Amino acid sequence: MNDVVRLATRNDSSSSVRMWQSAAMTDAGAGLRTADFAAWLERRRRAHRFQVRRIPFADLDGWAFEEATGNLRHHSGRFFTVEGLHVVRGGPPVGPYQAAEWEQPIIVQPEVGILGILAKEIDGVLHLLMQAKMEPGNPNLVQLSPTVQATYSNYTGVHRGAPVKYLDYFVRPGRGRVIADVLQSEHGSWFLQKSNRNMIVEAYDDVPLEEDFCWLTLGQIAELMRRDYVVNMDSRTVLACCPADYDEAGALYSDTEVLSWFTAERARHDLRAWRMPLDDVADWVRDEHRIAHVANRYFRVVAVAVEGSSREVASWTQPLFEPVGLGLVAFVVRSFAGVPHLLVHARVEGGFLDTVELGATVQCTPRNSAHLDSADRPPFLDLVLNAAPHQIRYLALHSEEGGRFMHANNRYVIVEADEDSAPAVPPPGFLWVTPGQLSFLLRHGRYVNVQARTLLAILNARAVQL
Amino acid sequence: MNDVVRLATRNDSSSSVRMWQSAAMTDAGAGLRTADFAAWLERRRRAHRFQVRRIPFADLDGWAFEEATGNLRHHSGRFFTVEGLHVVRGGPPVGPYQAAEWEQPIIVQPEVGILGILAKEIDGVLHLLMQAKMEPGNPNLVQLSPTVQATYSNYTGVHRGAPVKYLDYFVRPGRGRVIADVLQSEHGSWFLQKSNRNMIVEAYDDVPLEEDFCWLTLGQIAELMRRDYVVNMDSRTVLACCPADYDEAGALYSDTEVLSWFTAERARHDLRAWRMPLDDVADWVRDEHRIAHVANRYFRVVAVAVEGSSREVASWTQPLFEPVGLGLVAFVVRSFAGVPHLLVHARVEGGFLDTVELGATVQCTPRNSAHLDSADRPPFLDLVLNAAPHQIRYLALHSEEGGRFMHANNRYVIVEADEDSAPAVPPPGFLWVTPGQLSFLLRHGRYVNVQARTLLAILNARAVQL
Repeated sequence: MNDVVRLATRNDSSSSVRMWQSAAMTDAGAGLRTADFAAWLERRRRAHRFQVRRIPFADLDGWAFEEATGNLRHHSGRFFTVEGLHVVRGGPPVGPYQAAEWEQPIIVQPEVGILGILAKEIDGVLHLLMQAKMEPGNPNLVQLSPTVQATYSNYTGVHRGAPVKYLDYFVRPGRGRVIADVLQSEHGSWFLQKSNRNMIVEAYDDVPLEEDFCWLTLGQIAELMRRDYVVNMDSRTVLACCPADYDEAGALYSDTEVLSWFTAERARHDLRAWRMPLDDVADWVRDEHRIAHVANRYFRVVAVAVEGSSREVASWTQPLFEPVGLGLVAFVVRSFAGVPHLLVHARVEGGFLDTVELGATVQCTPRNSAHLDSADRPPFLDLVLNAAPHQIRYLALHSEEGGRFMHANNRYVIVEADEDSAPAVPPPGFLWVTPGQLSFLLRHGRYVNVQARTLLAILNARAVQL
Repeated sequence: MNDVVRLATRNDSSSSVRMWQSAAMTDAGAGLRTADFAAWLERRRRAHRFQVRRIPFADLDGWAFEEATGNLRHHSGRFFTVEGLHVVRGGPPVGPYQAAEWEQPIIVQPEVGILGILAKEIDGVLHLLMQAKMEPGNPNLVQLSPTVQATYSNYTGVHRGAPVKYLDYFVRPGRGRVIADVLQSEHGSWFLQKSNRNMIVEAYDDVPLEEDFCWLTLGQIAELMRRDYVVNMDSRTVLACCPADYDEAGALYSDTEVLSWFTAERARHDLRAWRMPLDDVADWVRDEHRIAHVANRYFRVVAVAVEGSSREVASWTQPLFEPVGLGLVAFVVRSFAGVPHLLVHARVEGGFLDTVELGATVQCTPRNSAHLDSADRPPFLDLVLNAAPHQIRYLALHSEEGGRFMHANNRYVIVEADEDSAPAVPPPGFLWVTPGQLSFLLRHGRYVNVQARTLLAILNARAVQL
């Protein structure tokens, strides 16, 4: 046995090289031309017309508020529940824009889904198999999604339902080579400790092209990520995990120093969160159409009916979380000795499994801190809001997971700064790291939150080059 | 500003090289000779004589069972509590030696401590500052511990008590260079989601040598790790995290494949655990002296009084967890194409924060499965128990954290196997990885459990060379 064993190379840099090659092709690949993409997506949108209507909770089908707790659940026990969460933050003092203790509704869905992109070398270049997919909370309903978005129920076949196309590549070994596979957290403010498996698998054999799917290069997806509301969140988080060896001469801090800073941030913060009955959540009120914060901040829980135009298309009702305003997610960027650095923020979110993850420099809904004085607002918010056009390296609108969130739209921005506006020695909780260092951390879970991952996907795909 | 910034190299391999150099010096370093160590430790033991006596719970000072819950707690709210835990395992079917659902007592101590070893280059070789320290649960009371073992209360100074020597090196930046710093889990069967910061810091300046402390090379510590009950668990877990670039020509699986397998293991298992009143825990009974399982398996909760011989030395009482028998922790090892591989096991433990971590091939208390048929016992247990002397590459007894566990003694073993006894394609939940790959994972938390870390420390220090 021992004699015939062949060893693998532990670290294979070819995946990164091939990803950069794919990123270099922006106009066309072996499939759709980038210029033709919008028309193709529009055709897919028309092929399965959907209508999404807001409905009162009473019109939800199969969903009800549980008598004893007020928790919102499906009678089958499937999908997810909306419950209450009590959060207590210990550790360092919090700023005026943060609370030390609060209660809120939260989505509880304790299962690990798969977000998978199938890759295939075509004409010598890696192509990614992407899907036109409708999700009721997307502002334009149909966006570009990964090859597979599957819940645990989908892929274990516990529940009935149409089989998920291409799923086999991600759950059965031997059909492809794994390029990336890591559990990453979902939105910590809206989900309780939820994570999904982010996968890229390169198929060994020919892959049949199904309706609603198209092959795109990474460079083509980069072009689409410069447009508003085209590439969905699930695609973005998977692309953030793709191998990307950035060519960097060094960094302000060694990887060991970055890890040490992160460890200290995790150790000095203390997060305790426990589930509670939704009915008992303080400062939130329910009427026939929504559960909302008394000051109308943060988000609302609402209900929608999704109606398909044809027999083949399912109709259903479900609850969604709807933020109260347009969000802002921004990386402040500076070059040190010629190497671009991003200013990350160690964030506490109530639904994180492990205290803190790294977020973008700014992640907030500006409307929620509009009532605060400038000095009390989140650090660097004003820098981003007041940035001159020449400082803005990237700006596009993207929505978060449309299967759970209604019009959860964020302005994603990368802004250049200088020593005056963003010093080399930033406030506690912030650190300058390179894109390559974030990419190094993203081989592992629970380091980088989902919003920061969108911005890293944009860099990985070279939608912007710093 | 930008012009004067100097960048760091992201990856510095010099720490690993210097650790190997330190490991090569086994007989003597700049301080104590290895041959003189036992006498030194004995002198330290005599200098602070301690007596540990078992006492009934009623004689605990400041500790009591809470009226409503039966939880055991200190009246000050300090230290830790003993509560109940209800655990439900989902995912793949469990074997006869595992339960799918159970209740047990658990230690709740939701704070992050620091386990820190101070390093210093002396005569061109890295030396580690180790401490002779008494812990009531150690079979021989005094063992070799890290420079610093500090709870959060210790290092934030929230509570009174003597200052912790050398603590500044680990909590104040600028006094040394960080060599390793990572949050690692503690015992998942006895602690609820506990983790500690494992740190190695190299001092910039001269370090005064305090009583009870000594400078040792990594090679000297390796010699001591071949002896029973000398190097304590906290030292071992920190040494498992030290930079160690193993010289390996490759591995059966690439790092990406190992990560993907781990991700799949985490995703396919499902662990739900919640705290419950200790009084309500099924199958466990309390009398005046202990809380024990009805079949006398697993462990007992007991109480001790610790009495110092001199005025300078504190006396106190506390509860401890006491396992019912000698444990066994064993790595099965094979060489594939000339490269040694360890057979890791993805383990579910009730107190893990995130479902599974990698354990050794075998981790159990053989007595707990003595009532089972051979086929129903933990995989590879019989291989280890029946190993011929020439197959045993390492064997020593070590105890677990003596501040919480009473005589929690394990036989730590590394056993060679062949294709017949441990096939290249192992059962589900097992995978062959190299020591270098485990070391790569140990830069990050919650991959490798504390028992497997002891065996990796033994390899890192070269107490055995595979």
